[in-house]
Amino acid sequence: MNGSIIRYILGQVLKIEGAFMAIPIITAVCYGEFEGFYYVAVSAVCLILGILMTLKKPKSNTFYLKEGCITTSLCWIFLSFFGCLPFIFSGEIPSFTDAVFETVSGFTTTGASILSNVEALSHCSLLWRSFTHWIGGMGVLVFLLAIVPLNGGSHINLMRAESPGPVVGKLVPKLRHTARILYIIYLILTVIQFILLVAGKMPVFDALSTTFGTAGTGGFGIKTDSIGGYSPYIQWVVTVFMLLFGVNFNAYYFILYRHFKKAFSMEEVRAYFIIVVTAVGIIMVDVVNRFSSFWEALRHSAFQVASIITTTGYTTTDFNAWSQTSRLIIVMLMFVGACAGSTGGGIKVSRFVVVVKTVFKELGSYIHPKSIRKIKFDGKPVEHDVVRSINVYFITFIIIFGISIFLVSLEGKDLVTSFTAVSATINNIGPGLEGVGPTGNFGGLSNLSKWVLIFDMLAGRLELFPLLLLFHPAAWRDMFSRKRQ
Amino acid sequence: MNGSIIRYILGQVLKIEGAFMAIPIITAVCYGEFEGFYYVAVSAVCLILGILMTLKKPKSNTFYLKEGCITTSLCWIFLSFFGCLPFIFSGEIPSFTDAVFETVSGFTTTGASILSNVEALSHCSLLWRSFTHWIGGMGVLVFLLAIVPLNGGSHINLMRAESPGPVVGKLVPKLRHTARILYIIYLILTVIQFILLVAGKMPVFDALSTTFGTAGTGGFGIKTDSIGGYSPYIQWVVTVFMLLFGVNFNAYYFILYRHFKKAFSMEEVRAYFIIVVTAVGIIMVDVVNRFSSFWEALRHSAFQVASIITTTGYTTTDFNAWSQTSRLIIVMLMFVGACAGSTGGGIKVSRFVVVVKTVFKELGSYIHPKSIRKIKFDGKPVEHDVVRSINVYFITFIIIFGISIFLVSLEGKDLVTSFTAVSATINNIGPGLEGVGPTGNFGGLSNLSKWVLIFDMLAGRLELFPLLLLFHPAAWRDMFSRKRQ
Repeated sequence: MNGSIIRYILGQVLKIEGAFMAIPIITAVCYGEFEGFYYVAVSAVCLILGILMTLKKPKSNTFYLKEGCITTSLCWIFLSFFGCLPFIFSGEIPSFTDAVFETVSGFTTTGASILSNVEALSHCSLLWRSFTHWIGGMGVLVFLLAIVPLNGGSHINLMRAESPGPVVGKLVPKLRHTARILYIIYLILTVIQFILLVAGKMPVFDALSTTFGTAGTGGFGIKTDSIGGYSPYIQWVVTVFMLLFGVNFNAYYFILYRHFKKAFSMEEVRAYFIIVVTAVGIIMVDVVNRFSSFWEALRHSAFQVASIITTTGYTTTDFNAWSQTSRLIIVMLMFVGACAGSTGGGIKVSRFVVVVKTVFKELGSYIHPKSIRKIKFDGKPVEHDVVRSINVYFITFIIIFGISIFLVSLEGKDLVTSFTAVSATINNIGPGLEGVGPTGNFGGLSNLSKWVLIFDMLAGRLELFPLLLLFHPAAWRDMFSRKRQ
Repeated sequence: MNGSIIRYILGQVLKIEGAFMAIPIITAVCYGEFEGFYYVAVSAVCLILGILMTLKKPKSNTFYLKEGCITTSLCWIFLSFFGCLPFIFSGEIPSFTDAVFETVSGFTTTGASILSNVEALSHCSLLWRSFTHWIGGMGVLVFLLAIVPLNGGSHINLMRAESPGPVVGKLVPKLRHTARILYIIYLILTVIQFILLVAGKMPVFDALSTTFGTAGTGGFGIKTDSIGGYSPYIQWVVTVFMLLFGVNFNAYYFILYRHFKKAFSMEEVRAYFIIVVTAVGIIMVDVVNRFSSFWEALRHSAFQVASIITTTGYTTTDFNAWSQTSRLIIVMLMFVGACAGSTGGGIKVSRFVVVVKTVFKELGSYIHPKSIRKIKFDGKPVEHDVVRSINVYFITFIIIFGISIFLVSLEGKDLVTSFTAVSATINNIGPGLEGVGPTGNFGGLSNLSKWVLIFDMLAGRLELFPLLLLFHPAAWRDMFSRKRQ
């Protein structure tokens, strides 16, 4: 294990976090809020620690998948730990568990909150909360790769561990350029949404927070009723942008470079939109009587479907009060999630596409037992290794899911609450149903449940294995054995 | 497709069903019940049809996996169709859907009932209901293989399609002998349980029905309170035998031939008992306050755990009233199911064991990406093909599960009812929670839901693919194309 490079990268990430805290600090200055002081202090600590940790260059750049996973997991834990300190020091979220929960929920773009009254928060804390979504959406390590020159080594392993989806490739030969292109697309979309929201007469502060939350598919609202109180125009803008941020960013890359045919023939993106349209259609029919007009029903259905499938978690209406069928579709969409290579969470559309193809292939093998056919995706055969790892992903997901529900059920809350609390966190969505539904929050859970869900949020964002690896003794064994030498 | 052999085997199965109806007929004679007449009539129809269908020997014995699957599925559909006729004609279950539901529930050893008052049924119908469990438990085709000489051909494909578990092998070189050994073990265990129950002063009729229900891990009770009204001794006997019938029958084969070491080192059987003991332990701690003594709590916990993990479905107490944690464990056990090669349903312990090993292997591959290691089971490496098919099994299961819940949720029943109604049928258990809990029944569901659950019961019993194949156009294509030649 190459410990020195882990230390070096952790240091870099801390520096970035320190720098990012400029955003709440500026906000505090604008609104004259005393809470800004705590952000200055924590930012300084992050910067100093970061500088100390990066003073010594790493001895070697050798960097395997194992190191990539461990580094990524540790980075996210560091980010969350330092990110939650201002909440604690300012007394806005005095409990350590709650502050960690809120911050992890931010960085993992979950958007599940323990706060019953978000409007009581200071502006700087509100914006920091939303900004963590933006950082977590595309990933802090991808950001690091885009700006810091890390020569040699296979740093793609960092990106592999942090980026969502079964296969992570480079768009262009140089990893650094790939990371930059991703962040440029991310930034452009963010800016367009912000302009459109401000054009719709949304206050600048609200527009900024909402945009950060949409871009990262996070979903922290700055109002207790989330997006429900804004105009239909704003709700539509958010709907469209949630869907856009849930698209595989490769599609935007293709569009940017005028490979339109490639962009529009992406199987995953097509499947994604087919699922969205189908879900909106069914829910529309189901809930149309609950609203005063067809358009209102369409708006709320489309908003909720977009919000859940992209795992954003904004709400415009209390979907917990909808019929069982609609509630069930919402729960199913939680698991589907957005496209791979987007900022969204969940299991990912591409995994489902591959998995459905696997089932048909298996059926086919009963009819022609001797045929050896590979599954195709986007016209190319999918390697057996990828299929296997997708299958294993599903199963690991189910196991973690089962254990989490068991632990959360110890609370004695009803099964729907336990089930959707875990679904909403492991898939990085935010609200669930019943007790943790749109009108509820996670504050009432026990500390045990909160830590289980914190684990789930991180596991969901990092796609299980990098985080699980932290608990695997073999991952650490040679680190210590080398030290002893 | 070899159509003539399918016809021939279907005919044989009808003859067997006709012969098995002797049991309700004899019962009707003993109790002087007029309903016996309907069994005589249906039995005659089965025998005549069966004889007609087996008059002409099949042209060839060529028999591939595809034919095995299709034949098995059709056999089970035929069995259920003819098996439900006496209920309809006698007016005891006048609705066709309900009668099919009850019969499929019987043959698939589910034990989910649409009846609110089973005690109103005639003795012959009660015993026929319980006896369908016994036939379905070990399988009618395995029975056929044991008694009818089917020369040549690869009839193991029939056994593959009907027997539960990821891998089905022969115990001895001759398939016919394997089938016989299985049925002999089955019969011996059945007789021992019957004797023990009668020794505990259970009325002979009750003992016979209960034994059939236990042996097939079915769970149709002949009392409205299932096994709740019998003595603790009887409840313990049923507990032990439910567990015994959930053990992989290979273990008994090894014991029978004095390979004790082999029998006791079977990984699946060990895992099965570890799960049982753990589950009983947790539930015990959780529910001990609800009962008057430690022993009473132990008895009910052990009974319920044994009943659910073996997918029998008998009840001694209303576990729907237990705490959320215990209810959740019950739901989890529903999915685990019994051992492969037993009469129990569910996903099967061995699949879970392999799957958990796969996850650890995947974690290991992050640490040593280049190592190529096979998973071991019972000391032998598991072929990649088996691992793959287990993975695909899980995923297909989840897909069918999801679609079923969606269709059942259209009823508008609460999510726990919809969820556990599907869990309890696809895993061939019987009772679920809430509306379909121990004190409820499936009679109140709509016809759509009932047909969905009928499909689920058959899919669960035949382990998905054989039944799905019926709906695959390619499975039928060459049957018709050959006819045209």
